[in-house]
Amino acid sequence: MPETLLSPRNLAFELYEVLDAEALTQRPRFAEHSRETFDAALTTARTIAEKYFAPHNRKADENEPRYVDGRAELIPEVKPAVDAFLDAGFLNANRDFEAGGMQLPSLVSQACFAHFQAANAGTTAYPFLTMGAANLIESFGSEEQKRLFLQPMIEGRYFGTMALTEPHAGSSLADIRTRAEPAGDGSYRLKGNKIFISGGDHELSENIVHMVLAKLPDAPPGVKGISLFIVPKYLVNQDGSRSERNDVLLAGLFHKMGWRGTTSTALNFGDNGQCVGYLVGQPHQGLACMFQMMNEARIGVGMGAVMLGYAGYLYSLEYARQRPQGRLPDSKDPQSPAVPIIGHSDVKRMLLTQKAYVEGAFDLGLYAARLFDDTQTADDQSSRQQAQTLLDLLTPIVKSWPSAYCLKANELAIQILGGHGYTREYPVEQYYRDNRLNPIHEGTEGIQSLDLLGRKLAQHNGAGLKQLIRLIASTAERASHHPGLDTLRQPLEQLVNRLQAVTLALLGDLAQGKVNAALANSSLYLKAFGHCVIGWRWLEQALHAELGLLKGTAADRDFYQGKLQAARYFLTWEVPGCHNELALLEARDDTCLSMQEEWF
Amino acid sequence: MPETLLSPRNLAFELYEVLDAEALTQRPRFAEHSRETFDAALTTARTIAEKYFAPHNRKADENEPRYVDGRAELIPEVKPAVDAFLDAGFLNANRDFEAGGMQLPSLVSQACFAHFQAANAGTTAYPFLTMGAANLIESFGSEEQKRLFLQPMIEGRYFGTMALTEPHAGSSLADIRTRAEPAGDGSYRLKGNKIFISGGDHELSENIVHMVLAKLPDAPPGVKGISLFIVPKYLVNQDGSRSERNDVLLAGLFHKMGWRGTTSTALNFGDNGQCVGYLVGQPHQGLACMFQMMNEARIGVGMGAVMLGYAGYLYSLEYARQRPQGRLPDSKDPQSPAVPIIGHSDVKRMLLTQKAYVEGAFDLGLYAARLFDDTQTADDQSSRQQAQTLLDLLTPIVKSWPSAYCLKANELAIQILGGHGYTREYPVEQYYRDNRLNPIHEGTEGIQSLDLLGRKLAQHNGAGLKQLIRLIASTAERASHHPGLDTLRQPLEQLVNRLQAVTLALLGDLAQGKVNAALANSSLYLKAFGHCVIGWRWLEQALHAELGLLKGTAADRDFYQGKLQAARYFLTWEVPGCHNELALLEARDDTCLSMQEEWF
Repeated sequence: MPETLLSPRNLAFELYEVLDAEALTQRPRFAEHSRETFDAALTTARTIAEKYFAPHNRKADENEPRYVDGRAELIPEVKPAVDAFLDAGFLNANRDFEAGGMQLPSLVSQACFAHFQAANAGTTAYPFLTMGAANLIESFGSEEQKRLFLQPMIEGRYFGTMALTEPHAGSSLADIRTRAEPAGDGSYRLKGNKIFISGGDHELSENIVHMVLAKLPDAPPGVKGISLFIVPKYLVNQDGSRSERNDVLLAGLFHKMGWRGTTSTALNFGDNGQCVGYLVGQPHQGLACMFQMMNEARIGVGMGAVMLGYAGYLYSLEYARQRPQGRLPDSKDPQSPAVPIIGHSDVKRMLLTQKAYVEGAFDLGLYAARLFDDTQTADDQSSRQQAQTLLDLLTPIVKSWPSAYCLKANELAIQILGGHGYTREYPVEQYYRDNRLNPIHEGTEGIQSLDLLGRKLAQHNGAGLKQLIRLIASTAERASHHPGLDTLRQPLEQLVNRLQAVTLALLGDLAQGKVNAALANSSLYLKAFGHCVIGWRWLEQALHAELGLLKGTAADRDFYQGKLQAARYFLTWEVPGCHNELALLEARDDTCLSMQEEWF
Repeated sequence: MPETLLSPRNLAFELYEVLDAEALTQRPRFAEHSRETFDAALTTARTIAEKYFAPHNRKADENEPRYVDGRAELIPEVKPAVDAFLDAGFLNANRDFEAGGMQLPSLVSQACFAHFQAANAGTTAYPFLTMGAANLIESFGSEEQKRLFLQPMIEGRYFGTMALTEPHAGSSLADIRTRAEPAGDGSYRLKGNKIFISGGDHELSENIVHMVLAKLPDAPPGVKGISLFIVPKYLVNQDGSRSERNDVLLAGLFHKMGWRGTTSTALNFGDNGQCVGYLVGQPHQGLACMFQMMNEARIGVGMGAVMLGYAGYLYSLEYARQRPQGRLPDSKDPQSPAVPIIGHSDVKRMLLTQKAYVEGAFDLGLYAARLFDDTQTADDQSSRQQAQTLLDLLTPIVKSWPSAYCLKANELAIQILGGHGYTREYPVEQYYRDNRLNPIHEGTEGIQSLDLLGRKLAQHNGAGLKQLIRLIASTAERASHHPGLDTLRQPLEQLVNRLQAVTLALLGDLAQGKVNAALANSSLYLKAFGHCVIGWRWLEQALHAELGLLKGTAADRDFYQGKLQAARYFLTWEVPGCHNELALLEARDDTCLSMQEEWF
């Protein structure tokens, strides 16, 4: 039976050949784990994803949540799926054994989670959001908040959301208007409207814990005046029992192009002046809290984009193997049998491009999860800090690159299926529609590009970039011992050298205050930087494929050859194309910046 | 009020500045026309499109045709819209005055039609398909066929379809299995199954005339054995009255990602052995007939892709003007008012890219329509032949380039609207879904690339390419008198020179029989060739903008500046990027060709 979620062989390659997951078991935190326990968790994830998540993926798309009597109604298949996820312990995959968790490395838990993301993006969002909200309370909440809100989330009884966006402000969180007034008893009364709140209403859980950004009366203007609040759907008594409804109103549902299984809501807080909230962490530090949590969330969003791309790739691959149509160009006999379309060079191009995108991004997502583990469990503080620095730098790429290129992969999957690709009788068009959300939510591509160029590069005195360059040089050095990789290594080295020079020049401009001009083409920079990172990861994969070929069994030869060919595609077809972006950046091209509104 | 379908100023620029529509009125066929009659037709088209087509575009998307008791049921708004179109005479816009037509040039009728395509792709398809079918009968049908089938189509009483695709064969028409047996009375009995037949059933008209490809019993194998038949839904008596149902069964409907307003059907011909059809033209010449008609149809499909891109561009432009959000990067005061997002450089990039794509493709589509007019009405036979040669060469680009790049434009429109772009409360996500069909139907991108490189380039001893190169050189020569255009002209000249050399090399390979290798990267060639053509058209537009600035009024300055900036974007951002494709073609890169099925 063909794989539909991800390739187990590729997953094993990533975990045990490229990223050395077993080395993590040397660390005290993971000492009770082994390759066997990792694989057992992965197998469980796959089984539940196939059994409970995949089967209702299309039904949830065709029957999106409905607004009924002030609440959101989902199809009945969602709850058993989420329950199976909870029962198997995946909500607490990273949490301590003592807290009821599996104490898995993030590398392995992300790999587990990937199966659910591939099987059903819509249903997976509910536990995903809950994990994010729980981590926020765990990091910044008081002991009482942990007892009353985190504990039932860990137990799977309460779910969570992130309530950031407001109608008038969109991505500009500096401008949010939701207010929080002290009630005198330590709690607050919130008033404001939020939109695009995923999972903002449902009846999958006893309660929903909204993590809400709002401003205190004495808040300074801008992002430095944002605070974070817990606002439960139902109030909670001191003994933990559920009390009455809080003043949080489901104002309506958004009807999305895809990812329809996840309720997207408009929520009104405090229409009746009775919306109770609890401050999390320090006043005015809400955005900092949110951002600390967001690193992990953005890996998750990036991986979500990867997995939709991956599912589309595998489906179109299987279709191309099975579908006979046409003949090769040099075949002159119309009575010769039709070839499977995988034999056509242009179809191979579309499959190879998908493979390069999804397996490249998959590697990056897991690499980022591995870095996250290092921030928590590396042997010494300096290694942990180093990992954090690099992860901070890479986060905009981990989020944005899969969102852009695994979406392109989905478009190619549709194209391979031809007219069928375009019909809802086949799954690939849904993957595209689901994935189209990813370049927008959790920070648009434009915002990621500004985050990278305007903020992340200069952090820690540029230590992140230096570290990345060193790592790429190390990969290239190891690759230089394999003459077969020369034609893959050289385009990467050329790109890195030029990118480094461009980066220094742009950072110089920023330091001189030429801010608008230096950031004007941040999207070009994001593309070149992203291709550089993915190109590096592909060279690393190619290296391990070479090693695999040297020592591997005959059964693995095809797998490694495919890796080398995909690396070749990415490094010789895509990476050299970035010199166009770099030339424009070098020239400080102002075509877009100088365009005037009235000229449109 | 902002424009929502297309920009009248841009249309006037194309018709009366770039493409000199008024010169057509010097030709005998169009002697009774003038700029005034052209504009009157355009105004009528716009009025009907706005009044009858645009209002139900979303409703038709949300209420796709349903299969009820063996027939397809549409929402009630479709018929009055199509009737208004018919009543205004647009179905016969090009037809002789004597035949009840408007005798308009194709240039003007395509421009009229563009309004309907922008307003409602789904409803517009019904008359579009009817026009295609009617043109086929007009070109190849017998007098009796014209009397019984064409005449009621001209009168708007019968509609038409194209029935080519079969389930097992897809794009490979050589392999169709529908059979047509002579019945002894001059008619035939057809048997076979067709899929993806747009407009294959509805109750908008008294009858539906299916133009069906099928094989005669003595047919040679392959594409040389395909014949063309008229197969009416209802049989027609000799006096033209409608008779009983023919043996054509609506087997089912396809449920598409977008373009949902147009019924996509599976039709069974001859399940009961009683499907009557009539041979059109000569036996075994069906594909040649179809292809002669397809040139005009492919301009229409390309223009359809343009107009969905255009509508999305205009919507996102207006949104970006109205939506305040965030501040410019150098603004340090969080209390300063938010700027409309059109002020952000990256939003300007997304708008400028859309403008470059949709206005570039719009120009090409109208240029192709102008060429079509030349094939019919140029002063002498040699000019007509020349126009035909160039149009044949350009047709794959006219069809495929807008399908690829105006779809990208739609993706950018979604991105500009952020979370709203992704919801069905706003129209841009539907434009994307509607447009996603265009890179597939009427010949996929892959097929267009093979048509261009494997067939069209070598036709007429390469006369089409020579002519194109001459025309580009002429534009460049005229541009060279405007020093302000130097930085736009030079990248185009560099691309053309290199493309010409690559083309000769690839044609040389083909002549030597290296067919598979020469065609392996046809998609790269299609991109580079397409960008070369659009780059040329942008230089031509820039030239006319320069002329406009020299003599124009102050009111037009912004318009011309916008044209120059969009030309600059395309020629300095996009055109140089094609050297990556050309380098791969020069190297005869075999990354895709050599990829093996078992390596995936």
